[in-house]
Amino acid sequence: MAKKYNFYAGPAILPQEVMKKAQAELLDLNGIGLSILEISHRSKDFEAIINAAEAKIRSLLGVPENYTVMFLQGGASLQFGMVPMNLLKGGKADYVHTGEWAKKAIKEAKLFGTVNVAASAEDKSFSYIPQTFNFSADARYVHVTSNETIGGVQWTKFPETNGVPLVIDMSSDILSRRIDFKNIGMIYAGAQKNIGPAGVTLVILRNDLVEACADGLTTMLSYKTHAKEKSLYNTPPCFAIYVIKLVMEWIEAQGGLAAVEKVNEAKAKALYDAIDGSDGYYRGTAAVQDRSKMNVTFRLPSEELEEKFVNEAKKAGFIGLKGHRSVGGCRASIYNAMGLEGVQALVQFMEKFAGENK
Amino acid sequence: MAKKYNFYAGPAILPQEVMKKAQAELLDLNGIGLSILEISHRSKDFEAIINAAEAKIRSLLGVPENYTVMFLQGGASLQFGMVPMNLLKGGKADYVHTGEWAKKAIKEAKLFGTVNVAASAEDKSFSYIPQTFNFSADARYVHVTSNETIGGVQWTKFPETNGVPLVIDMSSDILSRRIDFKNIGMIYAGAQKNIGPAGVTLVILRNDLVEACADGLTTMLSYKTHAKEKSLYNTPPCFAIYVIKLVMEWIEAQGGLAAVEKVNEAKAKALYDAIDGSDGYYRGTAAVQDRSKMNVTFRLPSEELEEKFVNEAKKAGFIGLKGHRSVGGCRASIYNAMGLEGVQALVQFMEKFAGENK
Repeated sequence: MAKKYNFYAGPAILPQEVMKKAQAELLDLNGIGLSILEISHRSKDFEAIINAAEAKIRSLLGVPENYTVMFLQGGASLQFGMVPMNLLKGGKADYVHTGEWAKKAIKEAKLFGTVNVAASAEDKSFSYIPQTFNFSADARYVHVTSNETIGGVQWTKFPETNGVPLVIDMSSDILSRRIDFKNIGMIYAGAQKNIGPAGVTLVILRNDLVEACADGLTTMLSYKTHAKEKSLYNTPPCFAIYVIKLVMEWIEAQGGLAAVEKVNEAKAKALYDAIDGSDGYYRGTAAVQDRSKMNVTFRLPSEELEEKFVNEAKKAGFIGLKGHRSVGGCRASIYNAMGLEGVQALVQFMEKFAGENK
Repeated sequence: MAKKYNFYAGPAILPQEVMKKAQAELLDLNGIGLSILEISHRSKDFEAIINAAEAKIRSLLGVPENYTVMFLQGGASLQFGMVPMNLLKGGKADYVHTGEWAKKAIKEAKLFGTVNVAASAEDKSFSYIPQTFNFSADARYVHVTSNETIGGVQWTKFPETNGVPLVIDMSSDILSRRIDFKNIGMIYAGAQKNIGPAGVTLVILRNDLVEACADGLTTMLSYKTHAKEKSLYNTPPCFAIYVIKLVMEWIEAQGGLAAVEKVNEAKAKALYDAIDGSDGYYRGTAAVQDRSKMNVTFRLPSEELEEKFVNEAKKAGFIGLKGHRSVGGCRASIYNAMGLEGVQALVQFMEKFAGENK
């Protein structure tokens, strides 16, 4: 079979080495004669896995000691509710509205307190990241969406919040670049882009905020529970956490986040250069300064050509290039596990397609 | 390596055939050149998997058409909260208190309304299933725990509730026997015993109760959301759902639930016969008429002998025989995927151990 290049927005490509390791070990983990799929989450073998996954995330991301790392379930979508349920407590929070994912976070927060939309990019169809903000003096936190997979925009630098904790949905770009934890109160991320397979959610919460979480919540919905029980209050998604450990080992082998960031920049540059150098055949949809390095969104001269492009690309082995159904167009998601070689192959295909379909 | 027999209480043994199939397909699902770990949950390939998983569960369990089948996250522990959040609505519910799992369900329900403990087995350390109930006339539902993994007791016949919907936590014995949906309003079950790997929760809810669910809940916590979106409101735990499909195919290959039930009865009989025939060396902890066919709990003459038993069993390849830390003793969990041959091997070991350690 011809090589397949996976440009899905999520669940998304995983490193081939990770999948091969998971496959090789699936019937017998570390020679114990049992599968990761059937061992107790309270066994020494699984404890070693979850501890290693956490340690590697801490080390790669440079998580300061006064933050708790948790592995939860329900995806970022559940976090949209858990964040205000735990942290808003009937008060006020600032949200920056940058697209579909921010919108969902805002909707859930309104159930638990007052939401001030401190800035919105709705005026230009969410094609840019706002630069001026109407922050509240009494906000409990400021919520931003680090990268919008649908609009293809990404924060380069997070806003200065003057001591108010930033809560960042990093589902689609965590571990793609280095980050500075200054001002950050919380990071959350569904795993299925750069962390691991679908079914686990990474939460990193500053300890003073853990302690300040609302009381009286359903046990499973309180961050206090999972912080206290080290993500083992109940049975966690063991296999997904195991794959996270393998992905972190893979990132280490790449040279850590600095190296990964460099490759991601090269990949994004190659694709955007191809778009910008196409004499207008391909048109990027995001403002140039806010272009996402994870999700490259673009249009062709017509919807018919876009459909033809997606179909011919698929036949040539490039999977998942259709834009999100809510906006149409095309999208190439180029998370960590997509190599520069895959992007270069796509660029070649794009050039050939443009030449043949003027 | 010597053959390992997995008696863990959960996550628990999966059929060897299922794990081999998952391993063989891990890098290339159905010849599409991509892994189940990296394909979109909105792809045709995944849609076929989740639809097949649901259809097979419906067929094997005999789920009537007026029930919705959902694949959620968070385990039974999250359901302890979601059930009253959706169904109690400030009203009253009857709970039968049969042990640690019922206790947790009761605790969460109290956050959302009035809980009437209609019967409790606490007087005898949860070693039996109550037979008389103080049901409320105005209960919105009656909650029971089908099988208690710690006490090793199991309902043989669910109580007559005179039209009040039964809500049953079947985490540890679903798909181990046939059930009658009469009176049942809802079934929920964490997957990691008889359904599949940890990280997915099965919910089966009668459609009139879906419609009656509370309004104004966090989107991800409302059954209405998941019923409407067919478990695809957000990214589901794709791999775990894929393994569920394989486990259902395995159950079909065994001859369906009637056949599985017969083997489970033979397995339980073999173990309890060994206990009862040991001249008191092994003592079952559950009332004879309520003995669980999934979790066989027993004591030895002393705690020292119990420790020796667990350790020597482990050396001989019998894993996970230690009782739950809250009650001590020994426990053999014999879910669907444990064959009669594994139980017979354990019985032989038990007889040998008793002879050598009088």
